[in-house]
Amino acid sequence: MSVPTATGSAHHVTTTADLGPAAALSCRECGERFPLTPAFACASCFGPLEIAYDLPLGDPEGLRRRIASGPASIWRYAPLLPVPADVADKPNLNPGWTPLVRADRLAAELGVTGDLYVKDDSGNPTHSFKDRVVANAVEAARAFGFTTLSCSSTGNLAGAVGAAAARAGLRSCVFIPHDLEQGKVVMASVYGGDVVGIEGTYDDVNRFCSELIGDPAGEGWGFVNVNLRPYYAEGSKTLAYEICEQLGWRLPDQLVVPIASGSQLTKIDKGLKELIATGLVEDRPYRIFGAQATGCSPVSQAYKAGHDVVRPVRPDTIAKSLAIGNPADGPYVLDIARRTGGAVEDVSDEQVVDAIKLLARTEGIFAETAGGVTVGVTGKLIEAGLLDPSLTTVVLNTGDGLKTLDAVAPTTGPSAIIRPNLDSFREAGLAS
Amino acid sequence: MSVPTATGSAHHVTTTADLGPAAALSCRECGERFPLTPAFACASCFGPLEIAYDLPLGDPEGLRRRIASGPASIWRYAPLLPVPADVADKPNLNPGWTPLVRADRLAAELGVTGDLYVKDDSGNPTHSFKDRVVANAVEAARAFGFTTLSCSSTGNLAGAVGAAAARAGLRSCVFIPHDLEQGKVVMASVYGGDVVGIEGTYDDVNRFCSELIGDPAGEGWGFVNVNLRPYYAEGSKTLAYEICEQLGWRLPDQLVVPIASGSQLTKIDKGLKELIATGLVEDRPYRIFGAQATGCSPVSQAYKAGHDVVRPVRPDTIAKSLAIGNPADGPYVLDIARRTGGAVEDVSDEQVVDAIKLLARTEGIFAETAGGVTVGVTGKLIEAGLLDPSLTTVVLNTGDGLKTLDAVAPTTGPSAIIRPNLDSFREAGLAS
Repeated sequence: MSVPTATGSAHHVTTTADLGPAAALSCRECGERFPLTPAFACASCFGPLEIAYDLPLGDPEGLRRRIASGPASIWRYAPLLPVPADVADKPNLNPGWTPLVRADRLAAELGVTGDLYVKDDSGNPTHSFKDRVVANAVEAARAFGFTTLSCSSTGNLAGAVGAAAARAGLRSCVFIPHDLEQGKVVMASVYGGDVVGIEGTYDDVNRFCSELIGDPAGEGWGFVNVNLRPYYAEGSKTLAYEICEQLGWRLPDQLVVPIASGSQLTKIDKGLKELIATGLVEDRPYRIFGAQATGCSPVSQAYKAGHDVVRPVRPDTIAKSLAIGNPADGPYVLDIARRTGGAVEDVSDEQVVDAIKLLARTEGIFAETAGGVTVGVTGKLIEAGLLDPSLTTVVLNTGDGLKTLDAVAPTTGPSAIIRPNLDSFREAGLAS
Repeated sequence: MSVPTATGSAHHVTTTADLGPAAALSCRECGERFPLTPAFACASCFGPLEIAYDLPLGDPEGLRRRIASGPASIWRYAPLLPVPADVADKPNLNPGWTPLVRADRLAAELGVTGDLYVKDDSGNPTHSFKDRVVANAVEAARAFGFTTLSCSSTGNLAGAVGAAAARAGLRSCVFIPHDLEQGKVVMASVYGGDVVGIEGTYDDVNRFCSELIGDPAGEGWGFVNVNLRPYYAEGSKTLAYEICEQLGWRLPDQLVVPIASGSQLTKIDKGLKELIATGLVEDRPYRIFGAQATGCSPVSQAYKAGHDVVRPVRPDTIAKSLAIGNPADGPYVLDIARRTGGAVEDVSDEQVVDAIKLLARTEGIFAETAGGVTVGVTGKLIEAGLLDPSLTTVVLNTGDGLKTLDAVAPTTGPSAIIRPNLDSFREAGLAS
């Protein structure tokens, strides 16, 4: 193995890091391999780096038993993640192992005749899938000797990083646009870490963080979504693992996944391929569908136009957790959707709200706007004949409605206001 | 067994209800037994009714195995709850089996040298312990043939009922004071059930619901916290079951439990006694401590004054989920605290906020105000020498900080606002 210097390498690198089955960083474009360091871009071609593994092959039954006897968290999959074997013994938020909800009432409304499930990630410690990725980044931070956990964020990630750092006993310092809603600032700062508001847009925040990584002012800092990104992103694979294990070690026929940067969708595909490679599931076709809000749908637009590249857009949608106008993994998403026989589709903000309320009234799940996007897109794909309603389908809800109350506030409210007596109640027309 | 008519009985009673090991309703005051119906007060003495069981005795090892092989929800304890054996197969929110978090960093701050744990119920489907009690009420509603699920609520319970009814395919109609904060109204109404605002206080809402139960306008309605209250309240026992199972089938030495109506604390005590009776845990002493906010501390005041009765107060505290000025189970709480060698204590709103932030920065758990009350009271009890810091202690967090953001908003915020450049960052004094 050649050992060129990867870009994005940081200070205080411990090269003897114990990251379990992780074997190397590997370039998604040219395949060049690098040692496990806090790096994110290939030194040869600047392509994105991801983790390559020494996977546990040849004994799927033993591996299934090992997983089944593990904790009720993502750490049951430690043999497939860039984490040490004793990860569950260290103080961490233990995210994952969230419910796969059989959604018969939603299925009936959508005209699905096969088995429909919602993977409900609002059950995570800070109520979004971000806890999965951040937990993996924390282990990388520990392995590389970082003492401060950091990120650029539009709000949700800042809270997930603050919480994870608090539990792990690490300092945190997160960067957000200065004009965020107060609720998100409260969530980010309640864990006691530093929260820095940047006078500028999220793009300015991101650019500043990249600058800080190369400067002594950021020495010893692990930015979960920058210099720890390859480790961080692996956390999304656990969604694929859990879905298949919860289905009885079986691949679903179809998955509907939201697209922000596109990272989650590509890692779910990677996770499914690893399950096939290790023999944990039978090798058979699956289709991955991507879901965007129309107000930020660069990947959907590229898909429909038959393009291989994604043209950046300026986001304008209530689905703020998906509002990345220039999605780094967009081209990979297009490739996966086409290769697996899936598709990419988008829905309007009005459809997002309707879908949030549909999921709430049929299954009692109050989803974040991103969940409205996937449920809404599922309905649209069925109407278009692109998603087969007779097959087993899993729709992801990656966040919690409590964080995006404003999206549904204008169209919810009391059925009636009455005086506290039976006559007044009967007049309201709600009596038995 | 005599079969007098219990008060609070409702229409359309199915007396062949399958409620598993539940054997009868039993009066807490006079011990009189009644058949299992939607009743809540003794016909002889008007005392509160609770569930009596045919407990599975004589084979603790077999029972432990049966529980361990059950689902990761409260339904693993179906042999100890008023629910049919196949309860987990019916559509429901499957609450419970929330994390028991080992809190070493919190322990260090509080001067606890023994093992300290936080039972974190924010991980439930609607992010409070209410999902446990409502899930039990849903099973009673099904068993009695009720088609509408209802409640009086100050907000959180309304959301839990709306969500549970949606998943179960029942109609819901919940009653709230008309002037609730918009966020709570959104949470209550997003699940598609009817939400009725009552022009009046929470007491007016409660009174109206009792009136509705006896009227044809409420025929076929199960009010989870009124005519289904004995079944509903049993859900709180699962907190005791989970804590002991998560400790390796061992009783904790000390528990710190919030007090609203006092029901939860009494049912935790009942649950622990059942675990001893069935042989699931060894019989040894435990102490139960009750926690209130000073602005609504009628039980704490009675405890300190040495009284057996609780004098109602008008609540004035940020801990709104505990703000019941006339707690129905107050006298039972006093009895349990004194009998077990515990105590009842209260903390100011300022201490509640400090405790929320202490828990967040040490363990990454963002608690509702009720969690601030229990953590704050734990500290105060240690300082007073009432809680032994060398023993195993479990502190309950029964809700989620996302629901009471206002409590911490005034004292959280960014550490700094900077321009997006390194000089500006260095000036802020946060650099590595």
